[in-house]
Amino acid sequence: MATYLEEQSPVYLDYNATTPVDESVKKAIFSALDLWGNPSSACPLGTQAKTAIDIARTSVGKLLNVAANDVIFTSGGTEANNWVLHLAVKVHKSEGREGKPHIVTTTIEHPAIIEPLKELVKDNICDVTFVPVDQASGKVDPGAIVRSLTKDTCLVTVMLANNETGVIQPIAEICDAVRRYAKEEQLKHRILTHTDAAQAVGKIPVDAQQLKVDYLTIVGHKFYGPRIGALIARGIGTVPMFPFLFGGGQERNLRAGTENVPMIVGLGAAAECISAHGQSHMNHLRTLRDYFEAEIGEKLGDAVVVNFQSSNRLPNTSSVAFRKIDTTACDLLAKCKTFYASTGAACHSNAPKTSAVLLASGVSEDLASKTVRFSIGRETTKEDIDRVVSELKAMTFLSKYGSSLLNSIGIGKSIGGF
Amino acid sequence: MATYLEEQSPVYLDYNATTPVDESVKKAIFSALDLWGNPSSACPLGTQAKTAIDIARTSVGKLLNVAANDVIFTSGGTEANNWVLHLAVKVHKSEGREGKPHIVTTTIEHPAIIEPLKELVKDNICDVTFVPVDQASGKVDPGAIVRSLTKDTCLVTVMLANNETGVIQPIAEICDAVRRYAKEEQLKHRILTHTDAAQAVGKIPVDAQQLKVDYLTIVGHKFYGPRIGALIARGIGTVPMFPFLFGGGQERNLRAGTENVPMIVGLGAAAECISAHGQSHMNHLRTLRDYFEAEIGEKLGDAVVVNFQSSNRLPNTSSVAFRKIDTTACDLLAKCKTFYASTGAACHSNAPKTSAVLLASGVSEDLASKTVRFSIGRETTKEDIDRVVSELKAMTFLSKYGSSLLNSIGIGKSIGGF
Repeated sequence: MATYLEEQSPVYLDYNATTPVDESVKKAIFSALDLWGNPSSACPLGTQAKTAIDIARTSVGKLLNVAANDVIFTSGGTEANNWVLHLAVKVHKSEGREGKPHIVTTTIEHPAIIEPLKELVKDNICDVTFVPVDQASGKVDPGAIVRSLTKDTCLVTVMLANNETGVIQPIAEICDAVRRYAKEEQLKHRILTHTDAAQAVGKIPVDAQQLKVDYLTIVGHKFYGPRIGALIARGIGTVPMFPFLFGGGQERNLRAGTENVPMIVGLGAAAECISAHGQSHMNHLRTLRDYFEAEIGEKLGDAVVVNFQSSNRLPNTSSVAFRKIDTTACDLLAKCKTFYASTGAACHSNAPKTSAVLLASGVSEDLASKTVRFSIGRETTKEDIDRVVSELKAMTFLSKYGSSLLNSIGIGKSIGGF
Repeated sequence: MATYLEEQSPVYLDYNATTPVDESVKKAIFSALDLWGNPSSACPLGTQAKTAIDIARTSVGKLLNVAANDVIFTSGGTEANNWVLHLAVKVHKSEGREGKPHIVTTTIEHPAIIEPLKELVKDNICDVTFVPVDQASGKVDPGAIVRSLTKDTCLVTVMLANNETGVIQPIAEICDAVRRYAKEEQLKHRILTHTDAAQAVGKIPVDAQQLKVDYLTIVGHKFYGPRIGALIARGIGTVPMFPFLFGGGQERNLRAGTENVPMIVGLGAAAECISAHGQSHMNHLRTLRDYFEAEIGEKLGDAVVVNFQSSNRLPNTSSVAFRKIDTTACDLLAKCKTFYASTGAACHSNAPKTSAVLLASGVSEDLASKTVRFSIGRETTKEDIDRVVSELKAMTFLSKYGSSLLNSIGIGKSIGGF
């Protein structure tokens, strides 16, 4: 017989993986499907489309406190991140510098930074230093970044907020430290700086000027927008730029390909929504996340540890280790019926691994394997949290009786993608 | 006082630049905006999204007569074209071949092939041979392709149909000739083959098997679909593959980036529409295009030349040189009030150039500068054609009195983007 808990549909607590599309964004996209002219065409159909793109560009620029011209639309965060890495190598080569280009990053970056960097190393195109983060705070130490710089470093790229732990990184401090180093070492070239802000936009204010970065990546579907993104080149014209995709000269010759007008217009609408309501969303997220953590603390006691709870974190993210379960977080998730959440590892894979990000952040292998990431969204309510905490309490109680009992409870609902 | 011709809105005859979004595609996109789950997530929201992508993949595969798995979604034709060039270079290097990779293409390709190739040459990554086309037919000679092959050639890429002249290229013959060469020369490696079919899909049947290519590029907005595309790798698993964008392992580790589900679903819907109605669309296009050419032939006589009229061409494309005007096609277009069309050159640029494609195809500089590309769509009617031909007749008559009179006629409506 289904219980009350099971009768309701599960609560989505995986907003860091992706968010629904805001109603205002949907409307914008749908209207813009009629702006089908080619923005490169000078006919009214084309100029209407071009104007719509320019308006969206202004909206995105406003959100991030950069000029509209600093915004270059891409197919997503992955393209923007891949682009900035190739761009930095190209800048290095174009300046005729003799050494092999060197890029500094951290061990906790998103695969869209880690993987292309590994590929560049494999292809012998650049060297990379993966700087470990502080094991107590999950935070990158600007001093450690500086110590890894060499005369050949062309780029420092550090994410603004980690998708798994939620820990916010000291980007402005890092940029200051990097520039101080360049000055002290009397380098003739710039060390470029980039932050992948994909996970931060919509959850905390993201001001590219305050962050002091040269480049910044955003992606719409993390803030109730569409599945496209942008690379921000702050102070375009003064920061070096090279295209990554070549062709028809779109985006001022910086990113070729006929513009995806409906999605660009949708990204503009999503940006406007954050500009207008971001602060109140943030307050809502923080209130509910703090309530969730207080509740699990009270109801589950020492059966749970909130990873990096005292660090400066995204207001919606809670990385919780269920330390007393005698199984893995994947198994726990597979049994839970009231919510959807994630682990950092691919639960659906044949060989589940423990989250590399948690391990790199200093979480023990045992706790990492028992960690679930809960990420809250605009739609989450106090009642949702109560329901989830009730089940978690029951689950951790049940787990005392061993995984055989846990296994008998029900069908799986594990989540893999991040 | 406005004339009858001016009272009606201008006829869009620039369908090769871009097409409107089909109503069925709009509906599909709008519904899929609710499939917002992350396809990499194992929760129902994620699996629904993944299923929708798989259905779209099947639809695109069916249209092109390849397996669903051969379809890899990209942000557009530009990305697919850039990708295949980098891929070929990577294959060459991965095989440990000593010589510098060499790519063979033609002088009439789209900028999304020409520009990345120029960049690869500039970066000293590969050599490129741009094979000229036959100056009478606008067609590539397979023999000329073969004569340009070397022991280091890793890729031959030739577009299926030219966007300006509409001339259809003998892709299957080229692929046969290339493979014959490889066999005769007893090469130990494959020479890969690719066609950019962006301009062909929806206008002629595009069967990747019959074309015998290894890779093929499509893009939705040329066939009433969305602004994304796909790279087809025919017989995936047997043709070599390397990713271009690295990250979260989407598209079976071949193209990273969270999938743009609504646009992918839209591309599937556009493909289904062509599978169902492509033949009747084609008949409609051909009938109207032939009517247009017959009418201008009759009404304008030797004042016009249809470029490559006797070549095998796209059924919707008419490249018309207004040989007796004493001005340029850009000026002519700027004066015409009944239609929108294109020249190959950027009319809105400060320094208009003559179409490089027309010159490379063997059209004289004089005729090329006087050529307008008319491209017909599903919506075009016989009445539209009549209206346009009437104006063209008046225009070419007026031009006898010199460009000063032509200039006094009205405001501009030139089109630049291709």
